[in-house]
Amino acid sequence: MKRIKTKKVVTIGGGTGSFTLLSGLKKYPIELSAIVSMADDGGSTGILRDELGVLPPGDVRQCLVALSDSSETLRALMNYRFEEGGLTGHSFGNLFLSALEKITGNFSAGVEEAAKILNVKGEVIPVTKTDTNLSVELKNGVVLAGEHEINTNVEVGIIGIKKAFLSPRAKANPRAIKKILEADLIIIGPGNHYCSILPSFLVTGIPAAIRASKAKVVYNCNLVNKRGHTDGFTLDAYVAELHRFLGQDRVDFVTFNTRQPAQALLKRYREASDELVSFVQEENPKRGYRVLKADFLSRQNIPRNKADKIAHIRSFIRHDSEKLAQALMMILELGEYENILRDIS
Amino acid sequence: MKRIKTKKVVTIGGGTGSFTLLSGLKKYPIELSAIVSMADDGGSTGILRDELGVLPPGDVRQCLVALSDSSETLRALMNYRFEEGGLTGHSFGNLFLSALEKITGNFSAGVEEAAKILNVKGEVIPVTKTDTNLSVELKNGVVLAGEHEINTNVEVGIIGIKKAFLSPRAKANPRAIKKILEADLIIIGPGNHYCSILPSFLVTGIPAAIRASKAKVVYNCNLVNKRGHTDGFTLDAYVAELHRFLGQDRVDFVTFNTRQPAQALLKRYREASDELVSFVQEENPKRGYRVLKADFLSRQNIPRNKADKIAHIRSFIRHDSEKLAQALMMILELGEYENILRDIS
Repeated sequence: MKRIKTKKVVTIGGGTGSFTLLSGLKKYPIELSAIVSMADDGGSTGILRDELGVLPPGDVRQCLVALSDSSETLRALMNYRFEEGGLTGHSFGNLFLSALEKITGNFSAGVEEAAKILNVKGEVIPVTKTDTNLSVELKNGVVLAGEHEINTNVEVGIIGIKKAFLSPRAKANPRAIKKILEADLIIIGPGNHYCSILPSFLVTGIPAAIRASKAKVVYNCNLVNKRGHTDGFTLDAYVAELHRFLGQDRVDFVTFNTRQPAQALLKRYREASDELVSFVQEENPKRGYRVLKADFLSRQNIPRNKADKIAHIRSFIRHDSEKLAQALMMILELGEYENILRDIS
Repeated sequence: MKRIKTKKVVTIGGGTGSFTLLSGLKKYPIELSAIVSMADDGGSTGILRDELGVLPPGDVRQCLVALSDSSETLRALMNYRFEEGGLTGHSFGNLFLSALEKITGNFSAGVEEAAKILNVKGEVIPVTKTDTNLSVELKNGVVLAGEHEINTNVEVGIIGIKKAFLSPRAKANPRAIKKILEADLIIIGPGNHYCSILPSFLVTGIPAAIRASKAKVVYNCNLVNKRGHTDGFTLDAYVAELHRFLGQDRVDFVTFNTRQPAQALLKRYREASDELVSFVQEENPKRGYRVLKADFLSRQNIPRNKADKIAHIRSFIRHDSEKLAQALMMILELGEYENILRDIS
């Protein structure tokens, strides 16, 4: 009889994409580690970084809430944003993490305490402990500093991004390295390509660890191209960029949504010049990864929060937690039955 | 064989006094209900009332933390005050209660959720659900509105308080009435006389419920007279004022500290014109209550918090939680052995 070992799954990302992914994965009996981007500097998170000198809590908070097994109220509390007075726009969960960082003396210890209080299943690991910021160089040579600036500056949409870097350079959290090396499956994305996904690959030590790991690597391809960031990117273009940052053709599987969103929704996205990501099977005959095409689209409506200025823009065309998790668990379980999947792509 | 029934104990107060009292009482196997003053409008609490339109969280927070059985870190978090930026002076626990009030739709429901999250032993009950403020009339006829104003206006210290009232008039929380009527023991104070104790007796329905209750009533006499508020008050003067508000000579026992604080400490208080409360046995031969005289003084040092501007003033000469709780439990257990105590006073 074979010994049954709990499989180790590592996710790499940040923001709403990670929230969706982890909400689905947490229902499976796996050892789950969420490695989280630390480049956020917008909104509530940006104010806390500036004023309190804390590390960015926003992305970590979303992952903690996704993996929390506590009451609905406590989870709602963590995502609550104040809507009046001097606290307007502050996420309660961000204040929670920042206060815990102050009390415990460092961000990682604060995150550990938060995980206990929120009864988190799995582990949430900041990709770096370095206080760093994302910068990009546009195609005209202009450098923009800060994720928030990158997300809001209109130049980005007109001129386009040439390259991204962290300043100062950031060293990987040793715990993140350990988890990557031990993983059976590494899941990248979904999420904003430049602001949530790439920042983790810019952290020194992360690409090398992924190259050295024996894990299967899956990339959850985004549903929509963000204007100025990834205009016209196909599935293959996304993977090519990841491979460039990883220094190796390391991706084994890509999940890709084939279900069309409602026309009205598509129209709204197109008005902001955001287009669906495309995939053409014939485009790349030498593709070294398999593409798992399926309906990954969420049909759920998202409650709006007046104080969260960006949630209603970023969250309408998005992945379905359960469908995505199911496909990923199938990939994880392939093992010796891998041949069965040959026909999928 | 007698059936052993869990005894019901109700405390009435607010602020640091309630924190001290409840921290001691929670270690005993009693059914504990803390009825909390809702007149606070200073500091972090005042800003939240003004800006978010919430009920005052400060006193409730202190009681919840005192009765919480959760981790040291979670308790420290609830008392944490931000020290920089736009959040300076805000107590994290106050933000926690205010956000829960917003999420649940009302303050009482928010307090209940908070009690669950903090694993609170016993119940914390706001004395009223009315959004009300404390006012006082000074001896020169000037009216000051708001607890914070009363605590900080220098006129109070020079002219003195004539009377106190709530504006608008507040109706008692039915849950507070129920607990008072069912109580075996009602404990009043310690706490700031005008700002933490009297506001509860100004709430319509509370004095009548105390008169109707079969409970023994204990008053924990303050250690220090606050300048302009209770200058020169003796133990008997405090009780006389309580009786005036209660509409009946209802106090059965008074605890009184007989231990002198350190000279250096006394000197600092005297510089602010705050004097120790005195008790003269012979002053009142017809005293209808017993005075339990003992050493109730705390010898603990309190860690200072830069952001809590008032903690270092209000908290040095104070009750010892355990000594106070022990004496109160003795009073509770008297029952048929009451005669034994005849000699105490």
